[in-house]
Amino acid sequence: MFELAEQNISIGKDEYNHRLNDLRIALFNTQRDMIEQKIPAVILVEGIPGAGRGELVNLLNEWMDARHIKNRTFWKVSGETKQKPEYWRYWNVLPAKGEIGLFFGGWYSVPVKKFISGKSSDVEFERAMNNAVQFEKMLSEDGLLIIKIWLHLSENDYRKVMKKRGGEPDPLSGDKESRRSIYADLLKSYEKAIRITDTSVARWYIINSHSSAQRNISVLELLISAMTNALKMKKQKKPSNGELFSTLPEHVLGKVNMEHKFEGDYGKAFKKFRESINCLTLNAYEKGLSTIILFEGWDAAGKGGAIRRLTSAIDARIRQTIQIAAPTDEEKTHHYLWRFWRHIPQAGHVTIYDRSWYGRVLVERVERFASSDEWSRAYEEINHFETQLAESGCLLLKFWLHISQDEQLKRFKEREELEWKHYKITPEDWRNREKVEDYFSATDDMLIRTSTEIAPWRIIPANDKRYARIEVMRIVCEELKRSLKVKK
Amino acid sequence: MFELAEQNISIGKDEYNHRLNDLRIALFNTQRDMIEQKIPAVILVEGIPGAGRGELVNLLNEWMDARHIKNRTFWKVSGETKQKPEYWRYWNVLPAKGEIGLFFGGWYSVPVKKFISGKSSDVEFERAMNNAVQFEKMLSEDGLLIIKIWLHLSENDYRKVMKKRGGEPDPLSGDKESRRSIYADLLKSYEKAIRITDTSVARWYIINSHSSAQRNISVLELLISAMTNALKMKKQKKPSNGELFSTLPEHVLGKVNMEHKFEGDYGKAFKKFRESINCLTLNAYEKGLSTIILFEGWDAAGKGGAIRRLTSAIDARIRQTIQIAAPTDEEKTHHYLWRFWRHIPQAGHVTIYDRSWYGRVLVERVERFASSDEWSRAYEEINHFETQLAESGCLLLKFWLHISQDEQLKRFKEREELEWKHYKITPEDWRNREKVEDYFSATDDMLIRTSTEIAPWRIIPANDKRYARIEVMRIVCEELKRSLKVKK
Repeated sequence: MFELAEQNISIGKDEYNHRLNDLRIALFNTQRDMIEQKIPAVILVEGIPGAGRGELVNLLNEWMDARHIKNRTFWKVSGETKQKPEYWRYWNVLPAKGEIGLFFGGWYSVPVKKFISGKSSDVEFERAMNNAVQFEKMLSEDGLLIIKIWLHLSENDYRKVMKKRGGEPDPLSGDKESRRSIYADLLKSYEKAIRITDTSVARWYIINSHSSAQRNISVLELLISAMTNALKMKKQKKPSNGELFSTLPEHVLGKVNMEHKFEGDYGKAFKKFRESINCLTLNAYEKGLSTIILFEGWDAAGKGGAIRRLTSAIDARIRQTIQIAAPTDEEKTHHYLWRFWRHIPQAGHVTIYDRSWYGRVLVERVERFASSDEWSRAYEEINHFETQLAESGCLLLKFWLHISQDEQLKRFKEREELEWKHYKITPEDWRNREKVEDYFSATDDMLIRTSTEIAPWRIIPANDKRYARIEVMRIVCEELKRSLKVKK
Repeated sequence: MFELAEQNISIGKDEYNHRLNDLRIALFNTQRDMIEQKIPAVILVEGIPGAGRGELVNLLNEWMDARHIKNRTFWKVSGETKQKPEYWRYWNVLPAKGEIGLFFGGWYSVPVKKFISGKSSDVEFERAMNNAVQFEKMLSEDGLLIIKIWLHLSENDYRKVMKKRGGEPDPLSGDKESRRSIYADLLKSYEKAIRITDTSVARWYIINSHSSAQRNISVLELLISAMTNALKMKKQKKPSNGELFSTLPEHVLGKVNMEHKFEGDYGKAFKKFRESINCLTLNAYEKGLSTIILFEGWDAAGKGGAIRRLTSAIDARIRQTIQIAAPTDEEKTHHYLWRFWRHIPQAGHVTIYDRSWYGRVLVERVERFASSDEWSRAYEEINHFETQLAESGCLLLKFWLHISQDEQLKRFKEREELEWKHYKITPEDWRNREKVEDYFSATDDMLIRTSTEIAPWRIIPANDKRYARIEVMRIVCEELKRSLKVKK
């Protein structure tokens, strides 16, 4: 989830000043409209220590009309407050209509700290997160706009910041040696927190704090879009539907290294992995470990080829491949997840999906087969679905096969020319190319919001087909081994 | 929650047959419309063993067009199913558009059984219930109507049924001796389940199975109302908003015994309880036990008098009385629960509310100050709020002072005549009397949906003021003692 947002951009000083100035004016004006329309908002600022949470809060005060901002921190909890229900302190400082509450940490800090320090179990932590969901839902239904910001630093950037700070005590523990583990623990806990609480009424936005310029521009753009949308929704007398706004400087896929080429003896490597997978899947069958492997990716990215190589390694009696096309008439009469629940593999079997439930947030979103309400609530539905799969002990592997636009064009043309590959190219494929920008945004949102610890996305550079095929097999191998070890 | 639904009525055989016939025709026609409009529905039938769940399911098949009904039980879980995620079995049998799924127990049976048998903790049970909420929300957002029925038997009725069954094995445990405890355990667990999962998208309805005639009429009326509403909502292109439908033959308050009169030496009793409460509240202050006592009830029911008697017993430094009138301008700019969160008592203090957060589902509902969306989601919001109070260790006592309509009229007239009580009667009071039926329904819904194990409603017959005042003090005394013992 976080690693996908680790894109650095550099902005020249002049350009930065220019854009900052424009965005500040726009933000100030949007806030005036919010005050006039009496829409209350909470901006919750969280993030990794050193990412500049405090700095950002101060800047926001400078950029907006501070008379209508209420700054809230929950550092020191007095004895008095401790004796009251946990949420009392948050209720007490909620913004009134037209005000903006700038919350430092808010209702996430306490449960996360408890969880990291081992004072609460997994289930208790989830319960706390569900309380947060309920709280936010209640406020949102009452017309409050909630924007949750996570300021992120890559591990490298984090180390640099901590080194710079030198003797300064670590805000979390003061213990220098444990910083590395704090970084990992914090990300792991927040990943879980965000997975549960990134709902269509209160979205999380992960923002890279690599440089303050990058951070500031991203935050300003986000706040302006979110508030403008809330104003529009209010005019239409609709509740804010948690529209998604991009906070990435470029597409996630833009930073994938496409230079990967397979080197070495392909035949030998293929044979090696085929044999391993064959053994491992039979072993998994014995132990009752189910596996789901799903493939998404651009048209002509080579999903079919990769799948055929993979299936050739698995005993036909314990595998099935499911091709997801448009839903059947019967499937249309049910919830869109229904058809995927139907095909959950038998214990020990391997089910391979050629396209999957992610169609909802990709093609159905871009082609408007699903309404924005429908696809925007699908992220939480999918995360919830995959959590249930993982909890039932199923191994879930998700591959995104990525090719460059040039490579795609080349393959399309090839297909048109080659008689026997002709059936593979349709006018629809060409049409999809025209909407490539929309598909890129939809893919970004999908990758970031559904790449979770329990089921991370694997982005495979696939300009070189052989590299992609071997890479897929290598990962399947590795993950089967890991899961079988855990299963015992 | 359950005990309030324990109202028995007797219906003559002729009248029953006549009504049954009309209702069956109406239900059948409503189902035809549902099929035509392609609305899917789930009717989930739960209840205490012996309440006739099986019988009801069979009858529903007879009454409706069985070709469009899918009957589902989840008794025997095959090994195959056990290896899949828990919800797989429910997804697999969801009704298609226009179909009705008749679910016996459904997704509640398994977690409740686990909880009762001690195989899951409180937090785990809550997590399971939150999963149910999420599942139902997802289906409801997709247009599925969910009606959850709890068939209830009073303890007496339950004993009778079990006696009749004689040698028949108990469906839950087969152990005759433990039946009493099964009854109590089941109710306690389901009370918690219903408190968490009675949401505005999937409501629970508690139906008294005292006689099959009473049960059948109630169920038929409920189903017809719920489906008719779903059809109306579909026409307006709105999601079904979980409109509430009455399933009680009479008002809850109708069965309160109004003959209670105080007997004995009032002065002596009052003095005794005053002294006890004085000691107990000081003791509670020492131990940091906070107490919230709230009063609701009809106009002129004597709330003020009861509160004055109570406060006279508590040291002024550790108590406050809060009069809830229309919200202030400041309060109007926040969520309606905000002003109640603000006044949560300091540790060890006693806060007395003269009217309370229940205004939302009473006066605001009846007078249409709150939209139906707003008041209908307030039940879960209130239960969630009170859960948080209880979890923070606060003692919460809720009194409903009840007087008959005649007694109210008498008191209104008195107030008009007596100069010094004149200020107490306003034209509004007379207007409220005209809406008495609406107030009765709103009170019914409130009492049943918010009388929970953690904060049950105490309905006090108050035609005799002295009886009511002493009764309130007696209960306060008793509950303080109980809580102090637990607190230690």
